[in-house]
Amino acid sequence: MKVAGVHRRTIWPTEDGEAVEIIDQRHLPHEWRVARLAQIDAVHHAIADMWVRGAPLIGVTAAYGLALQCRHAATDAALTEAKAYLDGARPTAVNLAWATERMVSALRALPEAERASAAWALAAALADEDVATNAAIGRHGLDILRSLAARHPHRPLNVLTHCNAGWLATVDWGTAIAPIYQAHEAGLAVHVWVDETRPRNQGASLTAWELGQAGIPHTVVADNTGGHLMQHGLVDVVIVGTDRVSARGDVCNKIGTYLKALAAHDNGVPFYVAMPFSTLDPTLNDGLAEIPIEARSPREVTHITGRDATGRRVEVQLTPDGSPALNYGFDVTPARLVTGLITERGVLAAQEAAIRDALARSPSPAP
Amino acid sequence: MKVAGVHRRTIWPTEDGEAVEIIDQRHLPHEWRVARLAQIDAVHHAIADMWVRGAPLIGVTAAYGLALQCRHAATDAALTEAKAYLDGARPTAVNLAWATERMVSALRALPEAERASAAWALAAALADEDVATNAAIGRHGLDILRSLAARHPHRPLNVLTHCNAGWLATVDWGTAIAPIYQAHEAGLAVHVWVDETRPRNQGASLTAWELGQAGIPHTVVADNTGGHLMQHGLVDVVIVGTDRVSARGDVCNKIGTYLKALAAHDNGVPFYVAMPFSTLDPTLNDGLAEIPIEARSPREVTHITGRDATGRRVEVQLTPDGSPALNYGFDVTPARLVTGLITERGVLAAQEAAIRDALARSPSPAP
Repeated sequence: MKVAGVHRRTIWPTEDGEAVEIIDQRHLPHEWRVARLAQIDAVHHAIADMWVRGAPLIGVTAAYGLALQCRHAATDAALTEAKAYLDGARPTAVNLAWATERMVSALRALPEAERASAAWALAAALADEDVATNAAIGRHGLDILRSLAARHPHRPLNVLTHCNAGWLATVDWGTAIAPIYQAHEAGLAVHVWVDETRPRNQGASLTAWELGQAGIPHTVVADNTGGHLMQHGLVDVVIVGTDRVSARGDVCNKIGTYLKALAAHDNGVPFYVAMPFSTLDPTLNDGLAEIPIEARSPREVTHITGRDATGRRVEVQLTPDGSPALNYGFDVTPARLVTGLITERGVLAAQEAAIRDALARSPSPAP
Repeated sequence: MKVAGVHRRTIWPTEDGEAVEIIDQRHLPHEWRVARLAQIDAVHHAIADMWVRGAPLIGVTAAYGLALQCRHAATDAALTEAKAYLDGARPTAVNLAWATERMVSALRALPEAERASAAWALAAALADEDVATNAAIGRHGLDILRSLAARHPHRPLNVLTHCNAGWLATVDWGTAIAPIYQAHEAGLAVHVWVDETRPRNQGASLTAWELGQAGIPHTVVADNTGGHLMQHGLVDVVIVGTDRVSARGDVCNKIGTYLKALAAHDNGVPFYVAMPFSTLDPTLNDGLAEIPIEARSPREVTHITGRDATGRRVEVQLTPDGSPALNYGFDVTPARLVTGLITERGVLAAQEAAIRDALARSPSPAP
């Protein structure tokens, strides 16, 4: 999408082909910074420390990390080691292991001498595939938005979203926000309620910034607010992204998603999850029992970073000295609360049979 | 309760009888500051700007504000004017108008010359009554905690609370936290999950500070986390305070309470509301439709204040320039989601008949 009028992706190879560059998202929305990653260690650090985040983008970034490492060591053992190292950078998002698995299984089939250049090309192909996938999610989601908007022709459609599943979470377009971008381009009036998404505030910092850059009307609200908005008819539809979906349609996403799903259900508001098939984990069934939930640093709860009156980036402590905090990064929304999954292959019921049928249809970018 | 080992209330008359002093809660948890309020304007400002907050404390503070004003003008017209001025400082909490109404109706019955001294004594009596009310809520709530704890004798009882309904929200003891203080004093092992309660973070700043001062084990979590904790059996009971309860038991409380009530309901976790009868608004029935919800400054969402590395209090901006925010202060939890109301007269079902019966029982500190 565009930043200050210039089209950007979130990750791109440098012109010399020696590295990839990423948007260092820790500094948004207050500062635009690009970081160069030339080694697997830098890639691991950028993923673990959330310079890049969002399940699809993490996957593509890891693919480039593996490709960079192949230039140093491309034996089967080296590939396995590099994959394990990258997979450990973030435990919840299934796309990470999905992308490295696709890389490793393709590269193993090649002579060792060809692996480095093939890996680079494969990472680029994964990036392009992500863009195509998200554009397709956007088209299918747009159909939903159009039909909901037809019920309220005289006012903008109100969409609530949680966290950032916009283009910054992917290579381009985003997942949950892709339908909103396509609606905006198609001239459909949309207003977005942006959950700030504590503790890392990806909504208030990233989604709000994205939407602002695109000129899409939006309002930031505390995470506590969505239920009240839905009770009062101020939300027409909720669309969120996901980090992992189980075979039966349980949805793991940013902590707090489950609470919004409950409120949507209680108020008859449709609750959609934008899911590229790369996010499906067909090996798991009961998402609540089986999906591992990442516990991140308590410091993300006790402290927060923002811009002070002089424009400086400052971290401040919010809690009393001596009060501990706990920081689960994700929760699981049971399939029963999900109206539908918006995928690159169409909108599916969050049910095992529907997911399995769509997965069986070829051609497939899925595992 | 105690601060650094010294027993404190949140509001007290100065020794010279010329003013009241309050804890300026805006500076907690990082700094202990006391403010002197000698005029009605200062009282209005302290309520509107949330130097004091919490429905019961607001009521008592307003009562003192009215008493201070009586020293300047105590005609019927002056009383009416002072009441209207103070009532406008915060629109949602019913205790404010309840306290000023009690003051004005008692004072009108007196000769004008006696009103100033009577008002001062009456405000002090309201403060003492609040302490007694909350102590009784604590005793009734303790019975609930004891019976829940008996199911899990080998681990602490996990209580989740939202916002601050501790002693800082009242004159002493608190409402939702009173049972926890009494449990702690009785030797019952309790651990408290403290919702940080964006946007003003009264949980992370005030409740965590209170519990830390009392030596009660607690953990601060983002508001998004409670659903996940309940899904995983990590919450035995939710107890919150309230700013207004309708005749049929709909509960208005800090924004986000409704989301926790939904999660409690979905996971079979008991959800209690600590309600002094001063918080009941028998004139309203459908809380969702009838309780006015205060929209506060968007700056509470876009900016936050904390302590920087040098110990300085700093406000930082969280959102991008140009992204608007909306800041509803409260939401309404329908009575159907409330397990019970913990009142000074015992634990009641959140149902019109039960509330009406308890209200009819005398002696009554209620309106």
